[in-house]
Amino acid sequence: MAQPTVGIVGAGQLARMTYEAGTRCDVALRVLARAPDEAAARVFATVDVGAPDDPSAVSDFAARCDVVTFDHELVDLDLLAALERDGHVLRPSAATLAVATDKRRQREVLGRSGFPMPPHASVADADGVAAFAGDHDWPLVVKAVRGGYDGRGVWTAAGPDEARAVVAEAARAGLELFVEPRLEIERELAALVARRPSGDARVYPVVETVQVDGICHEAVAPAAVDDGLRDAARKAALGIAEAIGLVGVLAVELFVVDGELLVNELAARPHNSGHLTLDGARTSQFENHLRAVLDLPLGPVALTAPVVAMANVLGTERTGDPRDRLSGALAVEGARVHLYGKQPRPGRKIGHVTVAGDDREDVGDRARRAAAALADPATGTR
Amino acid sequence: MAQPTVGIVGAGQLARMTYEAGTRCDVALRVLARAPDEAAARVFATVDVGAPDDPSAVSDFAARCDVVTFDHELVDLDLLAALERDGHVLRPSAATLAVATDKRRQREVLGRSGFPMPPHASVADADGVAAFAGDHDWPLVVKAVRGGYDGRGVWTAAGPDEARAVVAEAARAGLELFVEPRLEIERELAALVARRPSGDARVYPVVETVQVDGICHEAVAPAAVDDGLRDAARKAALGIAEAIGLVGVLAVELFVVDGELLVNELAARPHNSGHLTLDGARTSQFENHLRAVLDLPLGPVALTAPVVAMANVLGTERTGDPRDRLSGALAVEGARVHLYGKQPRPGRKIGHVTVAGDDREDVGDRARRAAAALADPATGTR
Repeated sequence: MAQPTVGIVGAGQLARMTYEAGTRCDVALRVLARAPDEAAARVFATVDVGAPDDPSAVSDFAARCDVVTFDHELVDLDLLAALERDGHVLRPSAATLAVATDKRRQREVLGRSGFPMPPHASVADADGVAAFAGDHDWPLVVKAVRGGYDGRGVWTAAGPDEARAVVAEAARAGLELFVEPRLEIERELAALVARRPSGDARVYPVVETVQVDGICHEAVAPAAVDDGLRDAARKAALGIAEAIGLVGVLAVELFVVDGELLVNELAARPHNSGHLTLDGARTSQFENHLRAVLDLPLGPVALTAPVVAMANVLGTERTGDPRDRLSGALAVEGARVHLYGKQPRPGRKIGHVTVAGDDREDVGDRARRAAAALADPATGTR
Repeated sequence: MAQPTVGIVGAGQLARMTYEAGTRCDVALRVLARAPDEAAARVFATVDVGAPDDPSAVSDFAARCDVVTFDHELVDLDLLAALERDGHVLRPSAATLAVATDKRRQREVLGRSGFPMPPHASVADADGVAAFAGDHDWPLVVKAVRGGYDGRGVWTAAGPDEARAVVAEAARAGLELFVEPRLEIERELAALVARRPSGDARVYPVVETVQVDGICHEAVAPAAVDDGLRDAARKAALGIAEAIGLVGVLAVELFVVDGELLVNELAARPHNSGHLTLDGARTSQFENHLRAVLDLPLGPVALTAPVVAMANVLGTERTGDPRDRLSGALAVEGARVHLYGKQPRPGRKIGHVTVAGDDREDVGDRARRAAAALADPATGTR
């Protein structure tokens, strides 16, 4: 039987970390990279160079693949729909991505299905923000409907003047907006689910994330929450995966507010909150994503230790080449280091460190220390 | 600081499985492959094509690397010594490989250091075998000094006539020989150790292997042996690594005979008995090999489950493309599948399956079932 080739659109760290799953199972993977020095392009044996928003590049790429999947959300939904009409297999599908890449549409679709979400409203102008403030009080959070990640596309407006400034800035960038109250978030959780075309699905142990300015700094699993919240998070992930017809891996980001879960947003792909599954779960999110898009049986999602912590390596002005400090990072007992081959810029995710163990504080501390050693020369020598 | 490039001579499954360790830490790896369709050459981004026994190919390759390491023992020792004289860094060193690739020399060196070994003698002709039989009785086992693996280079001689035939065959092939009694082997164990240039070393939990006709079929860790044998195996591995100046990973294959350990042979590289560390230990043998040859701190070697079993996928006449049966193999709960992209031939190792769990019999059974499904269409459908 001819063997399927899986193509990944986008050559960031997610594609890069998926490569080992393909190598292990001997599934042919290729990647569409904007440039040959992108994170995944540096390690894949087969690389196609082309922009993920260039219709002919994506179309040519799809023609070389049996299944197309995605490293990021920066894709043209009309193009994806056209590829499906031409018979290409996209997993997740264009319809799933249309929901997952549009935060406003997520809220419409999930709201209809009864998933709990923060109050929100579409806003066309500063008056719309002010009207929402009438019900919810300042400060408010204004978000771009599409394209925001790692804190980009999210603004806080303390009052009408700031709202006007945000709306004007968004208008210049051609962004559609919605608004929500600034919530008192007690915890942030993420529930990852892998799902096959048949509906078979597995939910990973719920992860707690630590976000600073909208950027994930740390994650730990299992989240230290009561059974009720944990079960609600898992149930939401499964329900949402079904509601949006997911094939692949889905991350559902959740807020805990007043002891209740609210769905924040979705990512229909492997996700930063799941990086700890590479070293800390029986099957990584990347392998289960690959299995799901190939309609192969999913692997067990249990953790391999009582607690697994992950800390991101975020670039600073001083990072230089983090590999100069591999020795210091690996000297932290149990530190599993992942570096993505990306040029360090302040705040940019250039790697992560995972530590598995028995004690929640200890594994978190070790992961943070090793990540700090990689990020910053001042802490990198021992 | 300039980052080191690690070159692997030989593009088999060991090099292939090392690739993910390089990708994770962003260490540049390249491979010297005899042909571009070899197991590792199919997945590495950077491949040099050349024969590992061609002096100019190996020399050119070494010139492109900061550290050279090895996928197999089929290397010319004089060439390696010359490369070291020219300033190239080989890990393990030419001196270590001179011992590790010569079974007779292993026995001389280890015998001087007091490690327990089977009785043995060099033999130049059939009379030599017969003389050894005077002390040890038929049948005897005749082994090639160099180049034997997976049952090749090993013969049983039931009596003088068979000994004459073996010696004649070996003479035609230009092989040097030694002889040992056919032992009543109770168990076969393997102890893997990773060691840095400084001498820092870690020994993996001792593995029990199941060999059929000299080919490893299965491995399970930890070996179900008493503390005395386990400690003796670990101590032997550490002591041998030190005695031969190992840098990298060393596998020490051991026999249990009359309740005592005997050192059978060495492999100064990642080894089939350690494949289960990829899915079942905190740091794989491949990553620790890479860390060791780069003189980076070694990672923890503990298992991630009470028992981890591995079964090799051995080709049969009927194997065809094992990927046709991935679905059946992955349907075995917990089966982690590794396929090497090698053309199946009867008896050839083309992959392995690992299962981690709590129950020794259960994990072994599941690993065997999944491996059988991949090897043979008759068992591959469910």
